[in-house]
Amino acid sequence: MPPEPLTPDRILEATEDVLRRYGPAKATVVDVARALGVSHGSVYRHFASKAALREAVTERWLAQSHAALSALADAQGPAEGRLREWLTALFEAKRRKAGDDPELFAMYMVLVGENSTTVERHMETMIEQLARIIEGGVGEGEFRPVEPTTAARAVWDASNRFHDPAYAPEWSRPGIETAFEAVCDLVLRGLHA
Amino acid sequence: MPPEPLTPDRILEATEDVLRRYGPAKATVVDVARALGVSHGSVYRHFASKAALREAVTERWLAQSHAALSALADAQGPAEGRLREWLTALFEAKRRKAGDDPELFAMYMVLVGENSTTVERHMETMIEQLARIIEGGVGEGEFRPVEPTTAARAVWDASNRFHDPAYAPEWSRPGIETAFEAVCDLVLRGLHA
Repeated sequence: MPPEPLTPDRILEATEDVLRRYGPAKATVVDVARALGVSHGSVYRHFASKAALREAVTERWLAQSHAALSALADAQGPAEGRLREWLTALFEAKRRKAGDDPELFAMYMVLVGENSTTVERHMETMIEQLARIIEGGVGEGEFRPVEPTTAARAVWDASNRFHDPAYAPEWSRPGIETAFEAVCDLVLRGLHA
Repeated sequence: MPPEPLTPDRILEATEDVLRRYGPAKATVVDVARALGVSHGSVYRHFASKAALREAVTERWLAQSHAALSALADAQGPAEGRLREWLTALFEAKRRKAGDDPELFAMYMVLVGENSTTVERHMETMIEQLARIIEGGVGEGEFRPVEPTTAARAVWDASNRFHDPAYAPEWSRPGIETAFEAVCDLVLRGLHA
Protein backbone atom coordinates (compact mmCIF):
# COMPACT_ATOMS: atom_id res chain seq x y z
CA MET A 1 0.00 0.00 0.00
CA PRO A 2 1.58 3.32 -1.04
CA PRO A 3 1.95 5.87 1.79
CA GLU A 4 -0.76 8.53 2.14
CA PRO A 5 0.42 11.68 0.30
CA LEU A 6 1.71 14.44 2.55
CA THR A 7 -0.80 17.32 2.20
CA PRO A 8 -0.83 20.70 4.00
CA ASP A 9 -4.00 19.54 5.79
CA ARG A 10 -2.35 16.40 7.16
CA ILE A 11 0.59 18.49 8.36
CA LEU A 12 -1.73 20.96 10.08
CA GLU A 13 -3.66 18.15 11.80
CA ALA A 14 -0.42 16.66 13.08
CA THR A 15 0.73 20.12 14.19
CA GLU A 16 -2.47 20.57 16.23
CA ASP A 17 -1.87 17.21 17.92
CA VAL A 18 1.77 18.06 18.66
CA LEU A 19 0.82 21.48 20.06
CA ARG A 20 -1.83 19.90 22.29
CA ARG A 21 0.75 17.41 23.57
CA TYR A 22 3.82 19.65 24.07
CA GLY A 23 2.46 23.23 24.10
CA PRO A 24 3.63 26.10 21.89
CA ALA A 25 6.89 26.67 23.79
CA LYS A 26 8.21 23.13 23.34
CA ALA A 27 6.65 21.81 20.10
CA THR A 28 9.10 21.67 17.17
CA VAL A 29 8.89 20.97 13.44
CA VAL A 30 10.87 17.77 14.11
CA ASP A 31 8.05 16.61 16.46
CA VAL A 32 5.52 17.24 13.68
CA ALA A 33 7.63 15.35 11.12
CA ARG A 34 8.11 12.44 13.54
CA ALA A 35 4.33 12.25 14.18
CA LEU A 36 3.81 11.98 10.40
CA GLY A 37 6.70 9.53 9.85
CA VAL A 38 8.42 11.91 7.40
CA SER A 39 11.61 14.00 7.41
CA HIS A 40 11.43 17.59 8.62
CA GLY A 41 12.55 18.58 5.11
CA SER A 42 9.24 17.22 3.79
CA VAL A 43 7.34 19.45 6.19
CA TYR A 44 9.41 22.49 5.14
CA ARG A 45 8.47 21.82 1.48
CA HIS A 46 4.89 22.80 2.45
CA PHE A 47 5.57 25.40 5.17
CA ALA A 48 8.68 27.51 4.67
CA SER A 49 9.36 28.03 8.39
CA LYS A 50 8.19 27.15 11.88
CA ALA A 51 6.61 30.63 12.00
CA ALA A 52 4.59 29.91 8.82
CA LEU A 53 3.39 26.60 10.30
CA ARG A 54 2.34 28.28 13.57
CA GLU A 55 0.40 30.94 11.65
CA ALA A 56 -1.32 28.35 9.43
CA VAL A 57 -2.38 26.08 12.28
CA THR A 58 -3.80 29.01 14.26
CA GLU A 59 -5.59 30.34 11.19
CA ARG A 60 -7.29 26.96 10.64
CA TRP A 61 -8.19 26.73 14.33
CA LEU A 62 -9.73 30.24 14.30
CA ALA A 63 -11.57 29.54 11.04
CA GLN A 64 -13.52 26.75 12.76
CA SER A 65 -15.35 29.40 14.80
CA HIS A 66 -15.73 31.74 11.79
CA ALA A 67 -18.06 29.34 10.02
CA ALA A 68 -20.80 29.33 12.69
CA LEU A 69 -20.54 33.10 13.20
CA SER A 70 -20.60 33.74 9.47
CA ALA A 71 -23.87 31.79 9.17
CA LEU A 72 -25.38 34.02 11.90
CA ALA A 73 -24.16 37.16 10.10
CA ASP A 74 -25.87 36.07 6.87
CA ALA A 75 -29.09 34.73 8.43
CA GLN A 76 -32.52 36.36 8.02
CA GLY A 77 -34.47 38.14 10.72
CA PRO A 78 -34.21 41.28 12.85
CA ALA A 79 -30.66 42.64 13.07
CA GLU A 80 -30.90 43.35 16.78
CA GLY A 81 -31.52 39.69 17.63
CA ARG A 82 -28.81 38.53 15.23
CA LEU A 83 -26.26 40.98 16.63
CA ARG A 84 -26.90 39.80 20.19
CA GLU A 85 -26.72 36.14 19.08
CA TRP A 86 -23.49 36.79 17.19
CA LEU A 87 -21.82 38.47 20.20
CA THR A 88 -23.05 35.67 22.48
CA ALA A 89 -21.79 32.97 20.09
CA LEU A 90 -18.40 34.70 19.83
CA PHE A 91 -18.06 34.96 23.63
CA GLU A 92 -19.04 31.29 24.03
CA ALA A 93 -16.65 30.12 21.32
CA LYS A 94 -13.74 32.05 22.89
CA ARG A 95 -14.52 30.77 26.39
CA ARG A 96 -14.76 27.21 25.12
CA LYS A 97 -11.46 27.50 23.27
CA ALA A 98 -9.73 29.05 26.29
CA GLY A 99 -11.10 26.39 28.65
CA ASP A 100 -11.12 23.20 26.55
CA ASP A 101 -8.20 23.76 24.21
CA PRO A 102 -5.64 25.60 26.35
CA GLU A 103 -2.53 24.74 24.31
CA LEU A 104 -3.92 26.00 21.01
CA PHE A 105 -5.32 29.01 22.87
CA ALA A 106 -1.81 29.64 24.21
CA MET A 107 -0.48 29.39 20.63
CA TYR A 108 -3.07 32.01 19.60
CA MET A 109 -2.02 34.26 22.54
CA VAL A 110 1.62 34.06 21.38
CA LEU A 111 0.58 35.27 17.91
CA VAL A 112 -1.55 38.04 19.46
CA GLY A 113 1.56 39.19 21.35
CA GLU A 114 3.56 39.20 18.11
CA ASN A 115 0.93 41.29 16.23
CA SER A 116 0.67 38.46 13.72
CA THR A 117 -1.09 39.04 10.39
CA THR A 118 -3.20 35.92 11.09
CA VAL A 119 -4.69 37.58 14.17
CA GLU A 120 -5.11 40.85 12.25
CA ARG A 121 -7.00 39.02 9.46
CA HIS A 122 -9.17 37.17 12.00
CA MET A 123 -10.20 40.49 13.53
CA GLU A 124 -10.95 41.98 10.11
CA THR A 125 -13.16 38.96 9.29
CA MET A 126 -15.03 39.41 12.58
CA ILE A 127 -15.54 43.14 11.98
CA GLU A 128 -16.78 42.48 8.42
CA GLN A 129 -19.39 40.07 9.80
CA LEU A 130 -20.52 42.65 12.37
CA ALA A 131 -20.69 45.28 9.60
CA ARG A 132 -22.95 43.00 7.50
CA ILE A 133 -25.41 42.63 10.39
CA ILE A 134 -25.36 46.38 11.09
CA GLU A 135 -25.78 47.23 7.40
CA GLY A 136 -28.86 44.98 7.30
CA GLY A 137 -30.28 46.70 10.40
CA VAL A 138 -29.72 50.15 8.91
CA GLY A 139 -31.35 49.03 5.64
CA GLU A 140 -34.45 47.81 7.48
CA GLY A 141 -34.66 51.00 9.56
CA GLU A 142 -34.03 49.02 12.75
CA PHE A 143 -30.72 50.80 13.42
CA ARG A 144 -30.01 54.50 13.02
CA PRO A 145 -28.13 55.42 9.81
CA VAL A 146 -24.54 54.70 10.93
CA GLU A 147 -21.60 53.90 8.66
CA PRO A 148 -21.55 50.09 9.06
CA THR A 149 -17.78 49.52 9.26
CA THR A 150 -17.15 52.37 11.72
CA ALA A 151 -20.03 51.16 13.89
CA ALA A 152 -18.80 47.55 13.61
CA ARG A 153 -15.36 48.56 14.89
CA ALA A 154 -16.96 50.43 17.78
CA VAL A 155 -19.06 47.34 18.68
CA TRP A 156 -15.94 45.17 18.41
CA ASP A 157 -13.96 47.50 20.72
CA ALA A 158 -16.85 47.93 23.16
CA SER A 159 -17.24 44.16 23.55
CA ASN A 160 -13.54 43.32 23.80
CA ARG A 161 -13.67 42.22 27.43
CA PHE A 162 -15.66 39.27 26.10
CA HIS A 163 -13.50 38.21 23.16
CA ASP A 164 -9.97 39.58 23.61
CA PRO A 165 -7.88 36.62 24.82
CA ALA A 166 -6.04 38.94 27.26
CA TYR A 167 -9.23 38.81 29.36
CA ALA A 168 -9.53 35.00 29.32
CA PRO A 169 -8.77 34.70 33.08
CA GLU A 170 -11.91 36.81 33.78
CA TRP A 171 -14.25 34.64 31.70
CA SER A 172 -14.88 32.14 34.46
CA ARG A 173 -15.48 34.73 37.22
CA PRO A 174 -18.92 35.06 38.81
CA GLY A 175 -20.92 37.93 37.35
CA ILE A 176 -19.28 37.78 33.92
CA GLU A 177 -22.58 36.92 32.15
CA THR A 178 -24.33 39.88 33.82
CA ALA A 179 -21.49 42.16 32.71
CA PHE A 180 -21.74 40.75 29.18
CA GLU A 181 -25.50 41.32 29.00
CA ALA A 182 -25.12 44.89 30.29
CA VAL A 183 -22.58 45.71 27.55
CA CYS A 184 -24.81 44.04 24.90
CA ASP A 185 -27.79 46.09 26.08
CA LEU A 186 -25.79 49.33 25.99
CA VAL A 187 -24.36 48.63 22.51
CA LEU A 188 -27.69 47.54 21.00
CA ARG A 189 -29.43 50.54 22.49
CA GLY A 190 -26.68 52.71 21.01
CA LEU A 191 -27.40 51.40 17.50
CA HIS A 192 -31.18 51.53 17.80
CA ALA A 193 -33.02 53.91 15.44
CA MET B 1 19.70 71.24 62.66
CA PRO B 2 17.62 68.15 63.59
CA PRO B 3 16.94 65.73 60.71
CA GLU B 4 13.60 66.02 58.93
CA PRO B 5 11.19 63.47 60.49
CA LEU B 6 10.65 60.31 58.41
CA THR B 7 6.98 60.43 57.32
CA PRO B 8 5.08 57.98 55.07
CA ASP B 9 4.85 60.77 52.46
CA ARG B 10 8.63 61.29 52.38
CA ILE B 11 9.12 57.52 52.01
CA LEU B 12 6.61 57.39 49.13
CA GLU B 13 8.28 60.30 47.35
CA ALA B 14 11.65 58.58 47.64
CA THR B 15 10.09 55.32 46.43
CA GLU B 16 8.73 57.05 43.32
CA ASP B 17 12.20 58.44 42.58
CA VAL B 18 13.84 55.05 43.12
CA LEU B 19 11.25 53.32 40.90
CA ARG B 20 11.79 55.90 38.14
CA ARG B 21 15.56 55.33 38.36
CA TYR B 22 15.75 51.51 38.65
CA GLY B 23 12.33 50.23 37.50
CA PRO B 24 10.01 47.92 39.46
CA ALA B 25 12.07 44.78 38.83
CA LYS B 26 15.30 46.14 40.36
CA ALA B 27 14.23 48.73 42.95
CA THR B 28 14.63 47.53 46.55
CA VAL B 29 13.68 48.80 50.01
CA VAL B 30 17.41 49.24 50.67
CA ASP B 31 17.59 51.66 47.69
CA VAL B 32 14.71 53.65 49.18
CA ALA B 33 16.36 53.75 52.63
CA ARG B 34 19.69 54.81 51.09
CA ALA B 35 17.99 57.65 49.14
CA LEU B 36 16.55 58.89 52.45
CA GLY B 37 19.76 58.40 54.44
CA VAL B 38 18.02 56.04 56.91
CA SER B 39 18.22 52.33 57.73
CA HIS B 40 15.86 49.94 55.92
CA GLY B 41 14.45 49.11 59.39
CA SER B 42 13.17 52.71 59.58
CA VAL B 43 11.31 52.27 56.30
CA TYR B 44 9.81 48.98 57.51
CA ARG B 45 8.45 50.77 60.61
CA HIS B 46 6.09 52.66 58.23
CA PHE B 47 5.51 49.99 55.57
CA ALA B 48 5.46 46.42 56.79
CA SER B 49 6.80 44.88 53.58
CA LYS B 50 8.09 45.68 50.11
CA ALA B 51 4.66 44.63 48.81
CA ALA B 52 2.92 47.17 51.08
CA LEU B 53 5.27 49.90 49.86
CA ARG B 54 4.64 49.03 46.20
CA GLU B 55 0.87 49.14 46.77
CA ALA B 56 1.05 52.47 48.62
CA VAL B 57 3.21 54.18 46.02
CA THR B 58 0.96 53.03 43.17
CA GLU B 59 -2.15 54.08 45.09
CA ARG B 60 -0.75 57.59 45.54
CA TRP B 61 0.28 57.75 41.89
CA LEU B 62 -3.21 56.67 40.73
CA ALA B 63 -4.89 59.10 43.16
CA GLN B 64 -3.25 62.02 41.36
CA SER B 65 -5.48 61.33 38.36
CA HIS B 66 -8.57 60.66 40.55
CA ALA B 67 -8.71 64.26 41.71
CA ALA B 68 -9.21 65.82 38.25
CA LEU B 69 -11.72 63.14 37.22
CA SER B 70 -13.61 63.45 40.49
CA ALA B 71 -14.05 67.19 39.89
CA LEU B 72 -15.55 66.42 36.46
CA ALA B 73 -17.88 63.82 37.99
CA ASP B 74 -19.19 66.39 40.48
CA ALA B 75 -19.39 69.37 38.10
CA GLN B 76 -22.64 70.97 36.92
CA GLY B 77 -24.04 70.82 33.42
CA PRO B 78 -25.46 68.23 31.02
CA ALA B 79 -24.47 64.66 31.89
CA GLU B 80 -23.75 63.72 28.29
CA GLY B 81 -21.03 66.36 27.95
CA ARG B 82 -19.57 65.50 31.35
CA LEU B 83 -19.49 61.78 30.58
CA ARG B 84 -17.65 62.38 27.31
CA GLU B 85 -15.22 64.77 29.03
CA TRP B 86 -14.64 62.28 31.84
CA LEU B 87 -13.87 59.42 29.42
CA THR B 88 -11.59 61.71 27.39
CA ALA B 89 -9.75 62.91 30.51
CA LEU B 90 -9.29 59.31 31.68
CA PHE B 91 -7.91 58.21 28.30
CA GLU B 92 -5.54 61.21 28.22
CA ALA B 93 -4.34 60.65 31.78
CA LYS B 94 -3.61 56.97 31.08
CA ARG B 95 -1.80 57.74 27.83
CA ARG B 96 0.27 60.43 29.53
CA LYS B 97 1.19 58.11 32.39
CA ALA B 98 2.08 55.27 30.01
CA GLY B 99 4.19 57.56 27.81
CA ASP B 100 5.79 59.98 30.27
CA ASP B 101 6.13 57.87 33.39
CA PRO B 102 6.91 54.38 32.06
CA GLU B 103 8.53 52.96 35.22
CA LEU B 104 5.60 53.80 37.50
CA PHE B 105 3.26 52.62 34.75
CA ALA B 106 5.21 49.34 34.73
CA MET B 107 4.81 49.13 38.53
CA TYR B 108 1.05 49.59 38.04
CA MET B 109 1.02 46.84 35.37
CA VAL B 110 2.74 44.46 37.79
CA LEU B 111 0.00 45.09 40.37
CA VAL B 112 -2.68 44.63 37.68
CA GLY B 113 -1.16 41.23 36.91
CA GLU B 114 -1.23 40.31 40.60
CA ASN B 115 -4.93 41.28 40.99
CA SER B 116 -3.90 43.76 43.67
CA THR B 117 -6.53 45.31 45.93
CA THR B 118 -5.09 48.75 45.08
CA VAL B 119 -6.01 48.25 41.43
CA GLU B 120 -9.39 46.82 42.44
CA ARG B 121 -10.08 49.91 44.61
CA HIS B 122 -8.96 52.25 41.83
CA MET B 123 -11.45 50.62 39.45
CA GLU B 124 -14.25 50.87 42.03
CA THR B 125 -13.49 54.58 42.48
CA MET B 126 -13.64 55.10 38.72
CA ILE B 127 -16.94 53.21 38.40
CA GLU B 128 -18.45 55.20 41.31
CA GLN B 129 -17.56 58.42 39.52
CA LEU B 130 -19.17 57.18 36.31
CA ALA B 131 -22.26 56.13 38.29
CA ARG B 132 -22.55 59.66 39.77
CA ILE B 133 -22.57 61.22 36.29
CA ILE B 134 -25.10 58.67 35.00
CA GLU B 135 -27.33 59.11 38.05
CA GLY B 136 -27.36 62.87 37.40
CA GLY B 137 -28.30 62.29 33.76
CA VAL B 138 -31.12 59.93 34.71
CA GLY B 139 -32.37 62.47 37.29
CA GLU B 140 -32.48 65.23 34.67
CA GLY B 141 -34.24 62.98 32.15
CA GLU B 142 -31.22 63.19 29.81
CA PHE B 143 -30.49 59.47 30.10
CA ARG B 144 -33.01 56.65 30.08
CA PRO B 145 -33.87 55.22 33.52
CA VAL B 146 -30.96 52.79 33.97
CA GLU B 147 -29.57 51.50 37.27
CA PRO B 148 -26.53 53.81 37.60
CA THR B 149 -23.98 51.30 38.92
CA THR B 150 -24.86 48.59 36.39
CA ALA B 151 -24.72 51.13 33.57
CA ALA B 152 -21.45 52.56 34.93
CA ARG B 153 -19.85 49.10 34.85
CA ALA B 154 -21.07 48.58 31.28
CA VAL B 155 -19.57 51.96 30.25
CA TRP B 156 -16.33 51.06 32.03
CA ASP B 157 -16.14 47.67 30.25
CA ALA B 158 -17.15 49.13 26.87
CA SER B 159 -14.39 51.76 27.03
CA ASN B 160 -11.64 49.46 28.34
CA ARG B 161 -9.54 49.62 25.15
CA PHE B 162 -8.90 53.24 26.16
CA HIS B 163 -8.03 52.80 29.83
CA ASP B 164 -6.95 49.21 30.50
CA PRO B 165 -3.12 49.31 30.70
CA ALA B 166 -2.97 46.03 28.74
CA TYR B 167 -3.84 48.12 25.67
CA ALA B 168 -1.16 50.78 26.27
CA PRO B 169 0.87 49.72 23.16
CA GLU B 170 -2.20 50.59 21.01
CA TRP B 171 -2.61 54.12 22.42
CA SER B 172 -0.05 55.68 20.10
CA ARG B 173 -1.32 54.00 16.91
CA PRO B 174 -2.86 56.08 14.13
CA GLY B 175 -6.65 56.01 14.21
CA ILE B 176 -6.91 55.49 17.97
CA GLU B 177 -8.73 58.83 18.51
CA THR B 178 -11.28 57.96 15.83
CA ALA B 179 -11.85 54.57 17.48
CA PHE B 180 -12.22 56.28 20.86
CA GLU B 181 -14.77 58.79 19.52
CA ALA B 182 -16.77 55.99 17.86
CA VAL B 183 -17.02 54.05 21.14
CA CYS B 184 -17.95 57.26 23.04
CA ASP B 185 -20.70 57.99 20.49
CA LEU B 186 -22.05 54.44 20.74
CA VAL B 187 -22.03 54.43 24.56
CA LEU B 188 -23.60 57.89 24.91
CA ARG B 189 -26.26 57.02 22.37
CA GLY B 190 -26.92 53.86 24.35
CA LEU B 191 -27.62 55.86 27.50
CA HIS B 192 -29.69 58.56 25.81
CA ALA B 193 -33.33 58.86 26.88
